Amino acid sequence: MDFPDPTTVKKVACVGTGTIGGGFVAQFLASGYEVTAYDPGDGAEEALQLLLDQAWPVLERIGLKPGASRSRLRFTNKIEEAVAGVEFVQESVPENLELKVGIYKTLDELVPPNIVIGSSTAGFPMTDIQKRCRFPGRTVVTHPVNPPYLIPLIEVVGGEKTDAVVLDWATTFFEAVGKRVLRMDKEIYGFMINRLQVALFREALQMIAADQATVAQIDDCLTHGLGLRWAVMGPFATFHLGAGDRGLGAWMDSFGGVEWRAPYVTETPLPDWTPELRAKILQQAEEVIEGRSIPQMIEERNDTIIGLMKLRDTCRINAAEKG
Amino acid sequence: MDFPDPTTVKKVACVGTGTIGGGFVAQFLASGYEVTAYDPGDGAEEALQLLLDQAWPVLERIGLKPGASRSRLRFTNKIEEAVAGVEFVQESVPENLELKVGIYKTLDELVPPNIVIGSSTAGFPMTDIQKRCRFPGRTVVTHPVNPPYLIPLIEVVGGEKTDAVVLDWATTFFEAVGKRVLRMDKEIYGFMINRLQVALFREALQMIAADQATVAQIDDCLTHGLGLRWAVMGPFATFHLGAGDRGLGAWMDSFGGVEWRAPYVTETPLPDWTPELRAKILQQAEEVIEGRSIPQMIEERNDTIIGLMKLRDTCRINAAEKG
Repeated sequence: MDFPDPTTVKKVACVGTGTIGGGFVAQFLASGYEVTAYDPGDGAEEALQLLLDQAWPVLERIGLKPGASRSRLRFTNKIEEAVAGVEFVQESVPENLELKVGIYKTLDELVPPNIVIGSSTAGFPMTDIQKRCRFPGRTVVTHPVNPPYLIPLIEVVGGEKTDAVVLDWATTFFEAVGKRVLRMDKEIYGFMINRLQVALFREALQMIAADQATVAQIDDCLTHGLGLRWAVMGPFATFHLGAGDRGLGAWMDSFGGVEWRAPYVTETPLPDWTPELRAKILQQAEEVIEGRSIPQMIEERNDTIIGLMKLRDTCRINAAEKG
Repeated sequence: MDFPDPTTVKKVACVGTGTIGGGFVAQFLASGYEVTAYDPGDGAEEALQLLLDQAWPVLERIGLKPGASRSRLRFTNKIEEAVAGVEFVQESVPENLELKVGIYKTLDELVPPNIVIGSSTAGFPMTDIQKRCRFPGRTVVTHPVNPPYLIPLIEVVGGEKTDAVVLDWATTFFEAVGKRVLRMDKEIYGFMINRLQVALFREALQMIAADQATVAQIDDCLTHGLGLRWAVMGPFATFHLGAGDRGLGAWMDSFGGVEWRAPYVTETPLPDWTPELRAKILQQAEEVIEGRSIPQMIEERNDTIIGLMKLRDTCRINAAEKG
């Protein structure tokens, strides 16, 4: 199959423009691409413009690439118009397997077989999504972290029928877009990011259901503790610094095989998801939200993350110069 | 029991001065306390001075409290000297339950019953540690996040025999020290911080053992994805912003009870802890460490975290003014 050069792509389509799909629109525009966007929902175009109003100043501060312009977006409610002549399609329809399978069948019929179709699915294996495609080889999961225009990471994972060369293509393409690519060789539910996130969140939910912790305390554990470290280094680098000057090997000799087993974690099934549990979370979350509006929280998040990414680069250089 | 006023404590003891205990020494000195430190290990005093050399410039940048001085530290290798006349004892001996039980029995005999003794244990319940004390009511877990002089969070958890008033005392005392206190009403293994951390780490270990992810990819998931968000907001605040302008309730209606269950997480026992797994982690970790020395990594971490904490405050104020 003769795929277009992933480093010189000019025109891409975004199918579905909610929080995630709209975030991809913003990212692609800022990276200098021409974008056609499709979403059949009522008010989808207005919602997308609002999202861009919010994202664009952020992207300007991160730095627009040559050719980046909001004027290079065309919105349509006809899917065949959206995908005509594009060199990549990013699918971000709601997280429903049947819906994804259906939209992939449609896209497979509309889009030439040498054009890669990536999915924003948060966890469905591409093997399940691609099953009704005639040309499944060019389908691949390309899963971002919300908001896609701000958080660098994206996971690239194939299904059983995905061509290996398409994993390479998607990796090179998204590196050209400016993303940090996690290319996975094995297909697992939830990929890497959601497996890690969900594991932590399950434990949080256990504690909240059992009245061992509140929503605000869980969020404090991250923002005033673990998240401060994980913004700077991952768990293994953290362990490497947790044994004085003896490093990761010594840390593992003390704690490997002990500290991450029961009784340190809850090895029981999750509590049932009930209206009571939902109400409890919602009520306790008020202590986290502290009366801030969603746009205010988004502004605060975006500013902090941009500043943090710059800060990390500076601190790494400074420490290297001193060290 | 007539406890000293927790807001006017002048003199504290640190029993055990490794990475964690030494970090407490640094924190207490910077908060203006007089500190006696005890550690029977070979070279412990020198190691503590090295830790202080590293921590003190950091603490100066965060801001020393009135009276803060490294000259107010007295090191001793006699435990009875260390605890004489102090108004609080922080125990940070190695993470071994028998050792903790023994040291608590000793401290219980040496320290008047109106003096609170806190433990840095990362997960043992105080119920198990306090069992040989004559005065268990004043014993309580006060568990920090490494490094204690930099990360604000501390968990306060009692055992079965801990007086409720001692939880209040420790909470007020550590707030006066300048910490962010997570006061827990229920005693669970691992408390909150390690439950969350271990849940995530177990999932990482599963994936590494199964060759689904590498150490560097796991660390990337945090530093280029989840950790960027969790430095700014916890999981619940993140979900609140994950459903457009519809908020946490709408997010839970879409994903509650679905997204955090199997097959999104590995619901099988952990792989055995083998020399092969240890070697694999150590080898893969080289990609994370990238040749940096431990002091260089510590410098980089400290600089970034200090900058991040200031950045968050500024961004919160700015967003509030605009919003």
